[in-house]
Amino acid sequence: MRKAKGLLLIQDGLGDRPIYKLGRRTPLEAANTPNMDNLARNAITGLMDPLAPGVRVGTDVGHLALFGYNPLRTYWGRGPIEARGVNIELKTQDVALRCNFATVDDEMNVIDRRAGRIREGTNALASALSGMVLEGDIEVIFRLATEHRAVLVLRGDHLSPEITNTDPGPASVGEPVRTCQPTEPGLRLAKRTANAINEFVSRSHEILSKHPVNIKRVDEGKLPANIVLTRGAGSALKMRTITERFGLKGACVAGESTVIGVARMAGFDIFTSPRFTANVDTSLEDKSRHALEALKQHDLVVLHLKGTDILSHDNKPLEKMHFIERVDEMIGQLVAKIEPDVYIALAADHSTPCEIGEHTADPVPVLIHGPDVLVDNVVSYGERNCQKGGLNRITANQFLLSLLDLMGFTVRYGY
Amino acid sequence: MRKAKGLLLIQDGLGDRPIYKLGRRTPLEAANTPNMDNLARNAITGLMDPLAPGVRVGTDVGHLALFGYNPLRTYWGRGPIEARGVNIELKTQDVALRCNFATVDDEMNVIDRRAGRIREGTNALASALSGMVLEGDIEVIFRLATEHRAVLVLRGDHLSPEITNTDPGPASVGEPVRTCQPTEPGLRLAKRTANAINEFVSRSHEILSKHPVNIKRVDEGKLPANIVLTRGAGSALKMRTITERFGLKGACVAGESTVIGVARMAGFDIFTSPRFTANVDTSLEDKSRHALEALKQHDLVVLHLKGTDILSHDNKPLEKMHFIERVDEMIGQLVAKIEPDVYIALAADHSTPCEIGEHTADPVPVLIHGPDVLVDNVVSYGERNCQKGGLNRITANQFLLSLLDLMGFTVRYGY
Repeated sequence: MRKAKGLLLIQDGLGDRPIYKLGRRTPLEAANTPNMDNLARNAITGLMDPLAPGVRVGTDVGHLALFGYNPLRTYWGRGPIEARGVNIELKTQDVALRCNFATVDDEMNVIDRRAGRIREGTNALASALSGMVLEGDIEVIFRLATEHRAVLVLRGDHLSPEITNTDPGPASVGEPVRTCQPTEPGLRLAKRTANAINEFVSRSHEILSKHPVNIKRVDEGKLPANIVLTRGAGSALKMRTITERFGLKGACVAGESTVIGVARMAGFDIFTSPRFTANVDTSLEDKSRHALEALKQHDLVVLHLKGTDILSHDNKPLEKMHFIERVDEMIGQLVAKIEPDVYIALAADHSTPCEIGEHTADPVPVLIHGPDVLVDNVVSYGERNCQKGGLNRITANQFLLSLLDLMGFTVRYGY
Repeated sequence: MRKAKGLLLIQDGLGDRPIYKLGRRTPLEAANTPNMDNLARNAITGLMDPLAPGVRVGTDVGHLALFGYNPLRTYWGRGPIEARGVNIELKTQDVALRCNFATVDDEMNVIDRRAGRIREGTNALASALSGMVLEGDIEVIFRLATEHRAVLVLRGDHLSPEITNTDPGPASVGEPVRTCQPTEPGLRLAKRTANAINEFVSRSHEILSKHPVNIKRVDEGKLPANIVLTRGAGSALKMRTITERFGLKGACVAGESTVIGVARMAGFDIFTSPRFTANVDTSLEDKSRHALEALKQHDLVVLHLKGTDILSHDNKPLEKMHFIERVDEMIGQLVAKIEPDVYIALAADHSTPCEIGEHTADPVPVLIHGPDVLVDNVVSYGERNCQKGGLNRITANQFLLSLLDLMGFTVRYGY
């Protein structure tokens, strides 16, 4: 079958709901996006549900689905994805956990789950925790991810990921740090693992409270990153890479460790840089340049942008709109430099309506632009315009397969 | 429940993509089809995916789905479907394979997988191969299907369909005939079956090379059908017929053995004729006449046309357009003679875009016309018009069930 290349741009948490001060339009609808609209005019558009209508997902599950995996079969906790994101190669017995640097008061109640979104000195804090030994013989690998996020890997025999979170979760200000426990009573390995986690959290509080980085932060009136909260425990995943499944070479341009983790598990080559901050201040120019470079040697290039999601969680619709306009400029520059036979797809991993401040199940607008797609009548990229698109309403798996089919990489059932 | 009759017309490989020389329209969009458009104006329309968005299928799987079966549960190779197509009743232990008459050079490299699409003398060639005995006690039943296609059934004890193809597949010119092997090492019955197949292929080459039909072909400068290539091994399927499932009487008007095979497995009565060539030169008048005849005694009549798919594989968009226009005339004559209370449905088993030359996962346009359907705003039958149809986007199974429901034949879940 004829083969073609494809570029998939993912704007994290792009989907939104009507916002009064934007004239009852979403940030995407309100934004001035001539380049996305140009793509839409010559594309097939539609609505995409990460898993299914009405099902909310995290960034990890949303990306697993967009990378062509069925998260209901391949998802065993965010920890292993994050571990791959920070380039830790998990061994079979390892248990990996997603962590936050957080701030607690003297009674171990959570003041801020993100320690004031700490960005400076975090490498030094992470180093101070890595290498400790728990329960006599469990080795700790602790590595910084992006911003206040980190990864904890427990390495040793007789461990189990069937444990609960110590992180009390979003909207938990004032709540105490939870005690890690087996997910069900009687799980012996899980009990041992939970003990190790509780020891780790407790020692993290001791070590971090005295750390110079935090003493300086307190002096400056900032929240200290005086504890590590854990969640999303899981073991190594066994996934067939996208190369094995479809015979294509993939690349992912991203700064966020979750997305990098999923991409690595899918067998994608990673293009990243310290200037990819997984935030609003990421270098769009560098991302664009890396994507063009990656397209030379790869069939499918995924370009991920986190800024839209960050601004949504912080309920900043106007800033989200402006960020989308900056992305639109980047798209304009990209399109001008891409060969016309390359398929260009726009998508999002999930919706994050600003006024909700969390991921919701609202479907996201998507489009595929390319030389021979059945162009529909939609002339602007937006949540409501794409409701009338020719793709109709499909899932993230189906969307990726549709893109791969246009690119000539799908497998045929039957003769 | 009130019962009504239905006619389902399947245009094989109908779906296409925009073609430059047709004004960026598909052959169906470009064709002058007043009768299909008349149906569309008074129908509910939509898009149909054979299995799911982004999933490519073969004619066999596409038809299993359109006849109401879940191919993921009922599909075990094309051989058994083809065997039913040429009216061989499989025994439990039989292994059936799909075959091509092909042309190889002296080094057993494939020159043409279809022996120049041979159509004459093939019955004599098939007879020369049937009845041989392999591996001491395995009986060979070899029967011609349509054109260069045939069916091989191995009858004997201790056989297994878990074997690989000797046919190297499409785009294999110059490649050697493959050796048949078990699909996994260590399968004892499969090893014995593979040995039998290899013996059969080798003896087919000996016998056919010397056959008068081929000597004459070589004299005339045509490619000789000097070998049989095998693929799609499978055992007898156990499927509940459509009569058992829905209590309806079905008929299928078709010339192509795959479609006839699926229809027979589904319990449909077959209306066929030597003038149904499963190609462009089929007799549309005869098909139409048989369909009207079949409607007298049957609830659901499926009328299958292969020409659209053949012309797509050969990248002949203009000819495809003209063939569709001939089908449109046939539809006009049919509709004039059919009672107004009969539901008329138009569908396709999959898309075969001319410029790709292979089946793709693009959804196909469908419609259901009848006395009480919820007519939508679509006024012309085409890939893009049906994107806006009232059926939205559904699968082939769902499409057939929707038709059967209108006809009053579905089963109710719950009280």
